[in-house]
Amino acid sequence: MDEFMQAAIDEARKGLAQGGIPIGSVIVHQNRIIGRGHNQRVQQGSAILHGEMAAFEQAGRQPASVYQESVLYTTLSPCAMCSGAILLYGIPRVVIGENQTFMGEEVLLRERGVELSVIQDQTCIGLMDDFIATNPELWYEDIGV
Amino acid sequence: MDEFMQAAIDEARKGLAQGGIPIGSVIVHQNRIIGRGHNQRVQQGSAILHGEMAAFEQAGRQPASVYQESVLYTTLSPCAMCSGAILLYGIPRVVIGENQTFMGEEVLLRERGVELSVIQDQTCIGLMDDFIATNPELWYEDIGV
Repeated sequence: MDEFMQAAIDEARKGLAQGGIPIGSVIVHQNRIIGRGHNQRVQQGSAILHGEMAAFEQAGRQPASVYQESVLYTTLSPCAMCSGAILLYGIPRVVIGENQTFMGEEVLLRERGVELSVIQDQTCIGLMDDFIATNPELWYEDIGV
Repeated sequence: MDEFMQAAIDEARKGLAQGGIPIGSVIVHQNRIIGRGHNQRVQQGSAILHGEMAAFEQAGRQPASVYQESVLYTTLSPCAMCSGAILLYGIPRVVIGENQTFMGEEVLLRERGVELSVIQDQTCIGLMDDFIATNPELWYEDIGV
């Protein structure tokens, strides 16, 4: 397992242990994690702190040049909001844990030139499968359904 | 002036008075403001709290049915991130103060069926023109340029 995807999974597990939705993300610049986070819907009552957004927020204000050299790792295919943040900041590459339990805006990201690698990691799939089975309302709320 | 666009402009002015980027937004459900906010890049060092995102965050966790009946007002054409949040939550209508100083993802939003009304309000244009002229670095940071 790639150390950065492992860090994203660690974030997802941290969220789960807090009673939250198990999705985590890290942003990596020049082989160093500059931002990390996990979904905060339950923990902070947040409508915007998905895992990826939490990682952007923790990275804080960065120059455009840093984003444009960064790789974002996320345990789950990024939704429209998180994909929009990826496009806003010009993140050139996204590594996705899985897109079997939820397919985000991968077509749009690819159309705009973002390089995507989808791992289909069994740990990521298992985390979401279990969560959706036991907390369907929470999950559907998180994706606006 | 529509009372809800006026509320978005009031938010933008509040942000400006705090030394921030003057963009404001409100989310309206059944003729009542359920969320309001302004850009927090300067005030909170935030990379994700654009005006629209701040309004979503202040609205808090809402059922999908509420978003799907809401109108979002924003003083400026929504960027990729904020447009993504609009799409995630299925906001059907967006009223935009202006798109002369910045053109956001209006084509994408329209393609996905969101109804947009662009007012080209001189107050909104003036707020951004003045801000960009005096703080260009801050503005370009906010849109990832």
